[in-house]
Amino acid sequence: MRITDSTPKADGFYMPCELDEHRCIYILWPQREDNWRQNAEPAQAVFKNLIQTMAKYEPVVVGTNADQYRNLIGMNMPNVSIVEISNNDSWIRDSGPSCVINGEGRIRGVDWAFNGYGGLVDGIYFPWDLDDLIGAKVCNIEGIDRYRTDDFVLEGGAICVDGEGTVIVTEETLLDPGRNPDLTKDQIEEKLKEYLGAEKVLWIPDGLYGDEDTNGHVDNVVQFVKPGKVVLSWEDNPDDPQYERSQKALEYLQSVTDAKGRQIEVVKLHVPAPMFITKEESQGVDAVDGTFPRIEGARLAGSYVNFGIVNGAILCPQFDNKYDAEAMRVLQECYPDRVIEPIAGAREILLGGGNIHCITQQVPKP
Amino acid sequence: MRITDSTPKADGFYMPCELDEHRCIYILWPQREDNWRQNAEPAQAVFKNLIQTMAKYEPVVVGTNADQYRNLIGMNMPNVSIVEISNNDSWIRDSGPSCVINGEGRIRGVDWAFNGYGGLVDGIYFPWDLDDLIGAKVCNIEGIDRYRTDDFVLEGGAICVDGEGTVIVTEETLLDPGRNPDLTKDQIEEKLKEYLGAEKVLWIPDGLYGDEDTNGHVDNVVQFVKPGKVVLSWEDNPDDPQYERSQKALEYLQSVTDAKGRQIEVVKLHVPAPMFITKEESQGVDAVDGTFPRIEGARLAGSYVNFGIVNGAILCPQFDNKYDAEAMRVLQECYPDRVIEPIAGAREILLGGGNIHCITQQVPKP
Repeated sequence: MRITDSTPKADGFYMPCELDEHRCIYILWPQREDNWRQNAEPAQAVFKNLIQTMAKYEPVVVGTNADQYRNLIGMNMPNVSIVEISNNDSWIRDSGPSCVINGEGRIRGVDWAFNGYGGLVDGIYFPWDLDDLIGAKVCNIEGIDRYRTDDFVLEGGAICVDGEGTVIVTEETLLDPGRNPDLTKDQIEEKLKEYLGAEKVLWIPDGLYGDEDTNGHVDNVVQFVKPGKVVLSWEDNPDDPQYERSQKALEYLQSVTDAKGRQIEVVKLHVPAPMFITKEESQGVDAVDGTFPRIEGARLAGSYVNFGIVNGAILCPQFDNKYDAEAMRVLQECYPDRVIEPIAGAREILLGGGNIHCITQQVPKP
Repeated sequence: MRITDSTPKADGFYMPCELDEHRCIYILWPQREDNWRQNAEPAQAVFKNLIQTMAKYEPVVVGTNADQYRNLIGMNMPNVSIVEISNNDSWIRDSGPSCVINGEGRIRGVDWAFNGYGGLVDGIYFPWDLDDLIGAKVCNIEGIDRYRTDDFVLEGGAICVDGEGTVIVTEETLLDPGRNPDLTKDQIEEKLKEYLGAEKVLWIPDGLYGDEDTNGHVDNVVQFVKPGKVVLSWEDNPDDPQYERSQKALEYLQSVTDAKGRQIEVVKLHVPAPMFITKEESQGVDAVDGTFPRIEGARLAGSYVNFGIVNGAILCPQFDNKYDAEAMRVLQECYPDRVIEPIAGAREILLGGGNIHCITQQVPKP
């Protein structure tokens, strides 16, 4: 049911850290041929491997358009449920609910208004009506009540929370004119605090270089190692346009404290060496007007920080890139108690506009 | 996940009596305009009232085609979840899974092959591909494993179980050439026992007079009051074609014992006085070739035995018929510990081809 007269904060709910235990994790089956090359077949192979890897650690729920249902149940994957969730695209981190919990073991969902990453101003596909319903659909499948922010547009990939009162965002996303142009920065902060049950919002200036799809989502930039400690997408070559963005983020994070008054420890995680869309990759997409194009030679916004999290493991994207091994090593140091699972073929996800974190959405276990 | 190498009986599972406690109950939103008059609007009003009535007693899950999703969540009904289940029609008793349990508190689903009540022989609509997936979809939403009978066609409304080893069916349905023409009666019994975890099958000869949609489903004829005791659709006018059918059923039930060796006590529940499709009702349907027609003057196969069951209540169809009050009284005597909820407007469900039992499907709470 939709709760219309209150907010999570008012009701004693807050969004836990993604590293806390999950009840299950959602993913949407990729399909749209104007975004995923070769009728999405290469991406589907990578998604399938990811699903099976995650299912070793926790229940996985795969949402799909109806016409792919039979295909998916035919795979008969253990610890995986297949459910119908009609969708425009597969970014459930962004279109799905942000689940909040309270001290009594209850879960609710925050169902943000979703407008395709900027609506008619700078959205990347049209229409986005089905994706705007995904928050409600996940809450209904899970049997949890939901808050809906009709007057506040947000994607789940635009926030990073520590579960102890701190939310990290980027100015590039949150102040984008395609999201909430009528709200001031203070009003946006207020919304985030009310709906995430948080106390303090930290504003990194920029997202990842080249991340035009999302206008610089924070989940390509930082993720918590634990409250008070983050991994940051890093570039140490001053000639790379990512360099200045990483520098500014580091300087900002070193200049602030979190909701608990802690200084923030930063672990640098080098971005992949520059990768560019090939001619073959570009031509594999059935390009249409109104959908963000995948143009030959465009730089891919790759980031190892966009890893996935499941109970007991980290899912590290692998791009056949010289920094792949370093990413595995850095993440193992950050999360010594978790298995670091390499996810091969993550370039296929990246070609669609994001990575493992973008295509997954956890439901916490309170 | 689909279990391919075993059966419920072999794994220690059985179907509990429908009167045992439910985890939740499923219903599908009516929509197809070639079966439900006036674009299904009158039926939807009755379904909505039924959903809200059931939700007073247990969680209700409403499955719907994607295009009605926004309509349904807008109703914001307490204790009701809305999920996408693409479907051909609304008879989830028949297209949904029969859930089985074991002694350790586990639930699984039996996902029967479904062919639209007789496939190309005497099925009532075409195609039925979406309905054949509903068993899998409910199991996946519930997160339970399922058995699938690719080689055995059955609808859930064609069986009535007591949870103590007895299954009641009708010969009219189970031996219909549109179901399993290559199986003998003994082989059909074997399938029922294996997949319902049962010991004995009782074969009432005929279904309800006029029930051509389902070829005489047993759920229009009998329902358990408790193991060893049933209510039977009754007609005491010898000039009515239902008379002989009821007589034969009574004689049969008095001639057999159940799986536990008990004689079966029978409570007679009078069928509604004859009701016929009006011109207006018939014309309200957008008739198409291949879908069972709703012809002016055709007798409706009304039965009070097709009531619904939820935790703590019985949902009694009301047809604006002279036997409505008697049905309420008889059911209250049968189920003294349950509230008997009258469901007004049940004629709208009947015009589509069934009643409350046909449009609901419980998931047990083991």
